[in-house]
Amino acid sequence: MDLQNLSYARRFDHVSGSAIREIFKVIAQPGMISFAGGNPSPAALPDQKVSELAQAVLAENGKAILQYGATEGYPPFVESLRAYVRDHLGLDVPTVLPVTGSTQAMDLLCKALINPGDRIIVENPSFLGNLQCMKLYEAELVPVNSDDEGLDPDHLEALIREVRPKMIYTIPTFQNPTGRTLSLERRKRVAQLANQYGVVVAEDDPYRDLRYRGESLPPIKSFDENGWVVFMGSFSKTISPGLRVGFMAGDSGILRKCTVGKQSSDVHTANLNQAIVDQYLRRNLLPDHIRTISSDYAKQCDRMLKQLASFPEGVKYTRPEGGLFIWAELPGHVSALDLLQKAIERKVAFVPGTHFYTDGGHLNTLRLNFSGSTLEQIDQGMDILRELVVQA
Amino acid sequence: MDLQNLSYARRFDHVSGSAIREIFKVIAQPGMISFAGGNPSPAALPDQKVSELAQAVLAENGKAILQYGATEGYPPFVESLRAYVRDHLGLDVPTVLPVTGSTQAMDLLCKALINPGDRIIVENPSFLGNLQCMKLYEAELVPVNSDDEGLDPDHLEALIREVRPKMIYTIPTFQNPTGRTLSLERRKRVAQLANQYGVVVAEDDPYRDLRYRGESLPPIKSFDENGWVVFMGSFSKTISPGLRVGFMAGDSGILRKCTVGKQSSDVHTANLNQAIVDQYLRRNLLPDHIRTISSDYAKQCDRMLKQLASFPEGVKYTRPEGGLFIWAELPGHVSALDLLQKAIERKVAFVPGTHFYTDGGHLNTLRLNFSGSTLEQIDQGMDILRELVVQA
Repeated sequence: MDLQNLSYARRFDHVSGSAIREIFKVIAQPGMISFAGGNPSPAALPDQKVSELAQAVLAENGKAILQYGATEGYPPFVESLRAYVRDHLGLDVPTVLPVTGSTQAMDLLCKALINPGDRIIVENPSFLGNLQCMKLYEAELVPVNSDDEGLDPDHLEALIREVRPKMIYTIPTFQNPTGRTLSLERRKRVAQLANQYGVVVAEDDPYRDLRYRGESLPPIKSFDENGWVVFMGSFSKTISPGLRVGFMAGDSGILRKCTVGKQSSDVHTANLNQAIVDQYLRRNLLPDHIRTISSDYAKQCDRMLKQLASFPEGVKYTRPEGGLFIWAELPGHVSALDLLQKAIERKVAFVPGTHFYTDGGHLNTLRLNFSGSTLEQIDQGMDILRELVVQA
Repeated sequence: MDLQNLSYARRFDHVSGSAIREIFKVIAQPGMISFAGGNPSPAALPDQKVSELAQAVLAENGKAILQYGATEGYPPFVESLRAYVRDHLGLDVPTVLPVTGSTQAMDLLCKALINPGDRIIVENPSFLGNLQCMKLYEAELVPVNSDDEGLDPDHLEALIREVRPKMIYTIPTFQNPTGRTLSLERRKRVAQLANQYGVVVAEDDPYRDLRYRGESLPPIKSFDENGWVVFMGSFSKTISPGLRVGFMAGDSGILRKCTVGKQSSDVHTANLNQAIVDQYLRRNLLPDHIRTISSDYAKQCDRMLKQLASFPEGVKYTRPEGGLFIWAELPGHVSALDLLQKAIERKVAFVPGTHFYTDGGHLNTLRLNFSGSTLEQIDQGMDILRELVVQA
C-alpha cells in the first residue's frame, strides 16, 4: 500500500510546525543580521567553563553519569537545585524536577493535565513554541488581555468564571514576545485567583535573571497557598540552551504525574548535562556569569531602544527592564510580513508579531531580539529597518 | 480551593508509573546483586573517552554546541549518522532524526500517529517502558503470539485483518524481555505484511550490535518497499544510556511529523551529547568498543546460562545470541513475585515477568539481566535463586 494512505494523529490537524523555527533556517545565511532568534549572544556561552566542568564531573563520577539515571533527576543536581530554588528564587516547594529544557516542563504539564477540549488561558501574544505544545494536546487557547503591567487580572477573573479553564499559562517576567513584566500586585492577584477558583498556573520564567534595571519581583509561585502554581525554570538563557536543562518546582502530586509522563518521554534528562549545571550551582558560578552577560545585554538593549527612538512617529515599542526582546507596533497600514521580505533582501531579519497571536492578525507588530547582535549590527540593522519603515 | 480537587488527564487513568523503575529504587541498596536492570556494565561505560571527546568538540565548536540547535539534529551528527545508517545498518533511508534516547523515538511516533482507541500490535511480553508510552497515548494494545523465532507472522496477519491496527511495535533482535530474535524469513514477512496492509512498523532495535554468537540479521526496515517501517536505534547500549542519544530512520513525511512533535517536546537533543556520539562515529571508535564490551557480556551471558542449566527440572529459559536478557519460566506453581520478595531479603533482584505482559498474569516468569553483574556476582546470585526455587 502506498504511504500516501497514512493518516496522522488528529492532534496535528491545526499544527504545522513552528513558523519561527522555519524563519531560523532562512536566516542562517551568512551575513544576515538577525533580530529574529531568542539566542544568547555567542560571547555569553561559556564553552571553556563547560569543558572544564565536563572533565571534572566525568573524572569524579563518570560511571554514574554515563549510566541510566533516575527520572527524578541526577541526585547531586536535585540537591543543588533545591537549594537554588529556595535561596535564589525564594520558593518553599515540596518537589523539584530537572527536565530537558523548560520546553519539556510545558509538555509534561500538559501531558499530566490536559484532555482534548480543555481550556488554557494564555497571554496574547505569547511564546509560540509553548502555544504549539498546548495545541498538540488539543487544548482550546483562550486569550487574556494584557497591558504594560502584564496580563489584566480583572479580565482573567472574568474569563475564569466564563470558560472554567484547566490552566493559565503566563510568562510573568520580560515576557516573550513583548518584554513586559507582570507587576507585583498582579502577581499576588494571579496566585489568589488560581487558588480561589482551582486553576493550575504554569509560570514560565526563563528570563528573570536577565534584569538590566529595576527591582527583581518574586515569582507568582511565592504567593501560592495551596499548590496550584507550577514554576518552570531554565538554564538556557543563563548558561546554555544547547545543554537542554530546565526544571519544574511545585506540588508533589502534580510533579509525580509529570515524572511518570517523563519516564516515557525520555526516561531522564542526560546526566552529564545535569552534572554540569549542578557544578554551576555548587560552585556558585551563576551570579558572576549573569552579571557579566547582563552588562552586555543591557548595552545591546539600550542601543536598540535608542535606535527605535528615531523611528518615524506612529511606531510604538516596549521598554523592557530585562530579557531578550523588544516588541514594536508599526503604523496600522504597515505589514511586518511584507517588511520581513524586504528586510531579508537587505540581510536583516526579525519575527513578525502575527505568529505569536493565538488567532493571527496584528500584522503591524514585530518582535526584535537584541541579545544575538553586536552594537554595530544593531546600528546597521536598525538603520535598514528604519529606512524600510519610512518607505512603507 | 484545595489541590485535592485537581483532576489529571484521562491518559493516566490506566498508567501508574513503570514498575521496573520502582524496583530500580528498591535495589539501589548497597550490596544488592541485581539481575533487574537493563544497565550496561560499569566497565563498559567509556568515561575517559567521553571526557576526551567532550573537550575536543567544545574546543572545536563550543559556541555552536552551547547555542540552540536545529530540531532536525546537530548537522555534523546528522551527517555521520546518515553514513552509519547506510554503511553499518545497510539501510537506504530518506531521513534520519537524532532523538533524546530511543524512548523519545517511540513517544514521537505515537504523537505523530496515534489517536485514542487506535490499535497497536505488540509482542507479549514486551518492553515495559514503551508499553507505558503507548498506553499514555490511549492506544489499545493487541498482543501477538511469539515463539523462539520471535513474533508469529501468521497470527500477525490474522490480527491485522481482524483489528486493523495503526502500528506494529516489535523489538526484533535480542528482544526485551525474552532475548529472542526474529528470524530472517519472518523479518521479510513482517515488512511485506506492513506494506500490503498499510500498517506502520515501529522497529525498536537497540541491542543488535551486542551479538555474541550467530550471524547478524538485516533490519526489517531493509525489506520495506513503501516506507511503512520506521527504524529506531540507540547508542545507550553501545556507548552510554546516560547521554540519551538515539535516532529514527525512515520516511521523510513520517519523520517530519515527528520533528514538529519534537519542537514542543524538547526543541532539540542536547548538542554536546550529539557531538560526542558524532565523534564515536567519525573516528570509527564503535567497532573496537563494541568488540571489547561484547566479549565481556558474552562471558556473563554464558555464565548465567551455565548456572541455569543446574536449576531444577521444569525451569525453562531462552538461550539468547546477544543482548542483555535471559527469560526464564518457573514451574507453574512458583510465583516470581513471591520469589522476588525472598530474593531481595537475600540481596538478589530481578524483574518478575508479569510486568512485561499487556494483561499481567504469567506469574511464573522472570527476566534476568547479566550485563550489570560480575561473573562472581552471577554465581553468587544464581546460587541463591536456585536455592529459593528449589524451596518454592
